[in-house]
Amino acid sequence: MLPLLALTLTRLRIGYSCTMNRRHRVKNRPRKRHVPDIGEGFRKRLVQIFGRESVSDEMEERICASYDATKRSALPDVVVRARNAEQICALMKLCNERLVPVYAQGACTGLVGGAVPFAGGVALDMTRMNRIIEIDRRNLTATVEPGVVTGDLQKEAEKAGLFYPPDPASHEFSTMGGNVAQGAGGLQCVKYGVTREYVLALDVVLPTGELIHTGSLAIKDVTGYDLTALMVGSEGTLGIFTRMVLRLLPLPEDLVTSLCYFRDAEAAMDAVSAIIAAKIVPRAIEFMDDECARSVRGGQDLHIPDHTGAVLLIELDGKRALIEDEMKRCVEICRSCGAFEAFEAYSAEEREKAWDMRRAISPALYKISPGGKINEDVCVPRSELTKLLHGIKEISGKHGVKIACFGHAGDGNVHVNALVDLSDEAEAARGYAAVREVFEKVISLGGTLSGEHGVGVAKQPYLAMQIPEKEMEIMRSIKKLFDPNNILNPNKMFPSQE
Amino acid sequence: MLPLLALTLTRLRIGYSCTMNRRHRVKNRPRKRHVPDIGEGFRKRLVQIFGRESVSDEMEERICASYDATKRSALPDVVVRARNAEQICALMKLCNERLVPVYAQGACTGLVGGAVPFAGGVALDMTRMNRIIEIDRRNLTATVEPGVVTGDLQKEAEKAGLFYPPDPASHEFSTMGGNVAQGAGGLQCVKYGVTREYVLALDVVLPTGELIHTGSLAIKDVTGYDLTALMVGSEGTLGIFTRMVLRLLPLPEDLVTSLCYFRDAEAAMDAVSAIIAAKIVPRAIEFMDDECARSVRGGQDLHIPDHTGAVLLIELDGKRALIEDEMKRCVEICRSCGAFEAFEAYSAEEREKAWDMRRAISPALYKISPGGKINEDVCVPRSELTKLLHGIKEISGKHGVKIACFGHAGDGNVHVNALVDLSDEAEAARGYAAVREVFEKVISLGGTLSGEHGVGVAKQPYLAMQIPEKEMEIMRSIKKLFDPNNILNPNKMFPSQE
Repeated sequence: MLPLLALTLTRLRIGYSCTMNRRHRVKNRPRKRHVPDIGEGFRKRLVQIFGRESVSDEMEERICASYDATKRSALPDVVVRARNAEQICALMKLCNERLVPVYAQGACTGLVGGAVPFAGGVALDMTRMNRIIEIDRRNLTATVEPGVVTGDLQKEAEKAGLFYPPDPASHEFSTMGGNVAQGAGGLQCVKYGVTREYVLALDVVLPTGELIHTGSLAIKDVTGYDLTALMVGSEGTLGIFTRMVLRLLPLPEDLVTSLCYFRDAEAAMDAVSAIIAAKIVPRAIEFMDDECARSVRGGQDLHIPDHTGAVLLIELDGKRALIEDEMKRCVEICRSCGAFEAFEAYSAEEREKAWDMRRAISPALYKISPGGKINEDVCVPRSELTKLLHGIKEISGKHGVKIACFGHAGDGNVHVNALVDLSDEAEAARGYAAVREVFEKVISLGGTLSGEHGVGVAKQPYLAMQIPEKEMEIMRSIKKLFDPNNILNPNKMFPSQE
Repeated sequence: MLPLLALTLTRLRIGYSCTMNRRHRVKNRPRKRHVPDIGEGFRKRLVQIFGRESVSDEMEERICASYDATKRSALPDVVVRARNAEQICALMKLCNERLVPVYAQGACTGLVGGAVPFAGGVALDMTRMNRIIEIDRRNLTATVEPGVVTGDLQKEAEKAGLFYPPDPASHEFSTMGGNVAQGAGGLQCVKYGVTREYVLALDVVLPTGELIHTGSLAIKDVTGYDLTALMVGSEGTLGIFTRMVLRLLPLPEDLVTSLCYFRDAEAAMDAVSAIIAAKIVPRAIEFMDDECARSVRGGQDLHIPDHTGAVLLIELDGKRALIEDEMKRCVEICRSCGAFEAFEAYSAEEREKAWDMRRAISPALYKISPGGKINEDVCVPRSELTKLLHGIKEISGKHGVKIACFGHAGDGNVHVNALVDLSDEAEAARGYAAVREVFEKVISLGGTLSGEHGVGVAKQPYLAMQIPEKEMEIMRSIKKLFDPNNILNPNKMFPSQE
């Protein structure tokens, strides 16, 4: 049982690091709990498929598979660990016949409850399918199993002088299967795009048990409908990935970073627009607002000038001479837009200092709001960021809820954190009311409820604000087409019709 | 009738320029011709929807809407010209009720018969919906109607210092609706990817008449299934685009180009791999084989050294100093791989000369093979190009069919031209037999039947070589989900089940 114990500790650690404070557990919204047909015969079949050591209904294991990085959890009835696609095909055939729900799980670092087994059934642990099958230097591709940790792929690619750009904050824990299922984003999307731009081909086990292959190894492929793209971001509801071919890029030669301090968010956003208008495309343009600056200043040993109302972290990559030059222009642009101080980081050590500031935000927010926070990841067209931030200030004032914003200004993707004590019902209600108004504002600005976290269960109640009835009907029909018995990660993404 | 005449002439010119020689028209494969319910009442309804001047069943108009850039054609019963989405909604509701086929058509520059109205019905001309609604410099997006000519969008973007990279050879005629429907590629995909990477949001009229909106204006969006991606490359079978939001990039500052001459294709392909391995990503790496070199030398006033067995055209974009340096490295690499002569083009005039060579290929092939050619656009992983070209030589010898290859070596996308007199039945049969074997070779190398042209009707007979039964069944089900009565561009893409 040692490996299981190790895994348990890892999962608990991940859970802890992601949610920081699990004391203030909120109740899940009540959900119908179907009782799947999981008798002795069913368990025997599982053991036949996976082997005795890879099937468990011990409480310790079930707890480990019960939650993600939100405060939501629900126990599965049994946990199985897959080693290959054939096992998963057999599992899905069995479960489709017996109408038992199945949830593919990686590191469960998701932020929307997407992998939580709310309807019970089988938690399918994919973390042992973690081989990097090939890093192909000639074709600039990687072939991996879904349990590969994002950071491990990034490191292996780097060893070959290559680069896998999608870079979610959880990359040290998150697995590639989850990244593709979620369509993960990250810090570098302003220049490099999101996960969907890096998936060439997938092996997928369907809810009905067939193994299909989508896409091809060729970079260009226009035969038939793009099932690969349909799978990316489908949140584990259409199929279980068992192998993925990903596109890599040559590793950029060098990096330079800067921090620019502004009196207010508007000036910072003007600078973002001006940088883009100057045809400079940074690898990352991260933003933090006054609340974040205050919280970081309070808790960390970082230099934050007085009167800081907004900070931009700008990072450029490429040839040294070119990016040094471009960074100087970026800082000039920031100053001309009102930045009153700047820190340019040209060495690795200085760059680390700049990033320390960015990394300090999330823990610092928990420190000033130990009762929790409601964390959303809305995204608007870049030009609408100022309007969004103004709107959020208004909403914050109206509801008496502190809201701290930081995130990826380069792509208009803002992490909106309503700092409320979730154990205080009235305060939590005010927080959720404020968040709903933020969503309304986002939609009115042509934006989306989620830039990178997805829908899962967390955004189900709001999805209809963005996706009209007919589009939703099409999506539901696609779900039904792939999963006629609604057994694969059931009742996620789409608002309940009950 | 003057505008109609002008349009007719344009279309005829396009048809001519694309197919070069329409004398040698081959017969279409026999197809069942359904007789749709197109009586007087139906025409009256069309006039109510579109206005009298935008509905026509005159033979001249029907002929213009009957063909694409292949030698395939079939007459529609009536041609209508749309001005807005509402008209198209009304049309689809009507046609879905009466079971009348509809084909959205742009410039009809397609190379697979994809827009040809084989089942009769309504040809829906989209070329009047050709407004560039907005070039948004702050968000780097363009909002366009589907009838916008690709080249017009490129020019408008350039005026704003921006860049729309997908660049099909037909960009001076082809329309954006077709580009998105086909998932168009082009010369610059090795660095910039294909059309799917540039479509952010679509307005789509469904076959059943509803107008839906997919995607959002935000660069990152992971709410719900990616219907936008499903629409891209769906070849006009799932919906009719009425508005599209496209991503733009900053216009690269400068360009440099070179031609490198090799004794054989293997050496050229080694050079391609070595350039990529050196972390240089050219904007384009175009290839031509010995047959192409011979044909160009025969017919044009271009310098082609003796013993040229393969040519690479390499183009880099970016900052002047950087790309001059990189180009010198590229040429060194080519020389070290066996290039015996190189032409480096650093001025606009020299660059034009280099591109003249590339542009001369297609007309030159028609000159040496006036009876026609079978033109395919297979794509393999870049590392397999040498094996593919060897295989094609063998197949060429075995069937006694000259095959000329050129194309986008950077992405493994090769235009395979079997030079046969299509009016000679035995020769044409040998040509098709050779092409089938080329497809087999491509599949065995992990490639795809089409890198950019699509399936249409031209590749229907071969599609099952690449796409297995279950995947095909899923695609057919998706078609049925969107188009239950099979009235939108019917019987395309999927092999006939009759």
